[in-house]
Amino acid sequence: MPESAAAAQQAVLSSGPQPFGSRLAAAMAARGPLCVGIDPHPGLLADWGLNDDVAGLERFSLTVVEAVATLAAAVKPQVALYERHGSAGMAVLERTLAVAADAGVLSIADAKRGDIGSTMAAYADAWLRDGSALAADSVTLSPYLGFESLRPALDLAAESGRGVFVLALTSNPEGKSVQHVGGSESVARRIAEAAAEENRRYSGAMGSVGLVVGATIGGALTELGLDLDAVHGPILAPGLGAQGATPADLRATFGAAYPAVLATSSRGILAAGPAIAGLRSATEATRDGLLEG
Amino acid sequence: MPESAAAAQQAVLSSGPQPFGSRLAAAMAARGPLCVGIDPHPGLLADWGLNDDVAGLERFSLTVVEAVATLAAAVKPQVALYERHGSAGMAVLERTLAVAADAGVLSIADAKRGDIGSTMAAYADAWLRDGSALAADSVTLSPYLGFESLRPALDLAAESGRGVFVLALTSNPEGKSVQHVGGSESVARRIAEAAAEENRRYSGAMGSVGLVVGATIGGALTELGLDLDAVHGPILAPGLGAQGATPADLRATFGAAYPAVLATSSRGILAAGPAIAGLRSATEATRDGLLEG
Repeated sequence: MPESAAAAQQAVLSSGPQPFGSRLAAAMAARGPLCVGIDPHPGLLADWGLNDDVAGLERFSLTVVEAVATLAAAVKPQVALYERHGSAGMAVLERTLAVAADAGVLSIADAKRGDIGSTMAAYADAWLRDGSALAADSVTLSPYLGFESLRPALDLAAESGRGVFVLALTSNPEGKSVQHVGGSESVARRIAEAAAEENRRYSGAMGSVGLVVGATIGGALTELGLDLDAVHGPILAPGLGAQGATPADLRATFGAAYPAVLATSSRGILAAGPAIAGLRSATEATRDGLLEG
Repeated sequence: MPESAAAAQQAVLSSGPQPFGSRLAAAMAARGPLCVGIDPHPGLLADWGLNDDVAGLERFSLTVVEAVATLAAAVKPQVALYERHGSAGMAVLERTLAVAADAGVLSIADAKRGDIGSTMAAYADAWLRDGSALAADSVTLSPYLGFESLRPALDLAAESGRGVFVLALTSNPEGKSVQHVGGSESVARRIAEAAAEENRRYSGAMGSVGLVVGATIGGALTELGLDLDAVHGPILAPGLGAQGATPADLRATFGAAYPAVLATSSRGILAAGPAIAGLRSATEATRDGLLEG
């Protein structure tokens, strides 16, 4: 190893892993703010001429990674659609995450996990610990047991250079019965404020504690007084394209926080498969729409 | 097949599977209201002289099932502790669930899953559909996205004779920042009322939509105005024994709803292993305490 390379490697080793928030900010700056969802729904598998089995699941997943790995800032495999195939499906997810890492694209395991104490620590071990077969760059979490119940994942993510996205405010109508409750001190607002507090441990443009906020929430941020700009973390916004939001909607909805928004498109892009060229064109068109929108 | 057996089988087929709530009520009446948690924490594996690997996980899980299958109303494997070992760990969970079914004890997969739409349907497929490798008698769910977002699981459970336990009110202090929000219309109360409404589709002593309510919540039910007796479903109450609640505490906390309470003990019983005789004695003592308490 040349002396300069050895010195550079030593610098990286002594400073620990680079935080997820910094890595994601760099990827969004270089490639645009697009995350491609990997959603192997039974209907999509059929549209692609694949069987609804483990072989179809693997073919689908690896095709998406191959197509978008150099174009998207991140990919987001939907864990439920692997779990649906049992442990064999989870093994496909492990391979998908490994291939994404090798291909140089950040991964967000959309698992929406949440528990307390040593059980939450076990979920953190699964998704955020070096050496775990399911380790991803980041994982989505669900805070019904309180933001602070997620502590083991928050701390392990900081330690291992990984990230989390905590469910805050979603677009589905039934989400209001939990997230909007509490008036000016709503559940969603408390989650956003806790994430902001947590991101104080990170320097740089963006912390490693993100939120999930639906792209089609309309005026709910204003209504509930959520200050997403103060979160200083990435905002994962599902709902672009097939689910209804345009790039202009995103800018209008997120306002000052828009630079931190990582928009997710799944079906709008996946419908262009299984041809790699089709997936690439759809990804580029979606990304360009975000950059121009 | 003798004519009477054929007629009996026909009767079963035409009436569909027996609902989970009825099966659980029968098990609780016959064996007492005890659920044994299967929690293969790294520390417990070490205490049992097992490695923190897939072989240790399997040995631990199958030992617990063998010991308690004829004594407990249900067993509750903690999914995070299998997921921590990746897809190979999930395969051990599949075997554990299959062995529990063969041994005639009801299973509660403690997965705390929750999502929306077709993604929630995929989680329902994983845990509640006939033929799924991970199918359990019931699964725990997390309602941050709203009780109604769980609809695919509620409906599939009804169809397949399985059940769900929805997180409502937990004992961890940080849970208040979500569950207690909303005053007289708190998040936890809304969840309990939605479960009560949902259980109207079930006749018999107990519906198949249960709630998770911590055994050590103290006076929170009264404080928040939760009427668990009106839920007409099972109340899964973790926190018996090692986590701090006595049988007398349970009766005081749950009042009129106590007959529906399925108390869960994990570490208090598991600490008596790995000897089968020790696990059996601890299970019997815990169960007898509940019956006398």
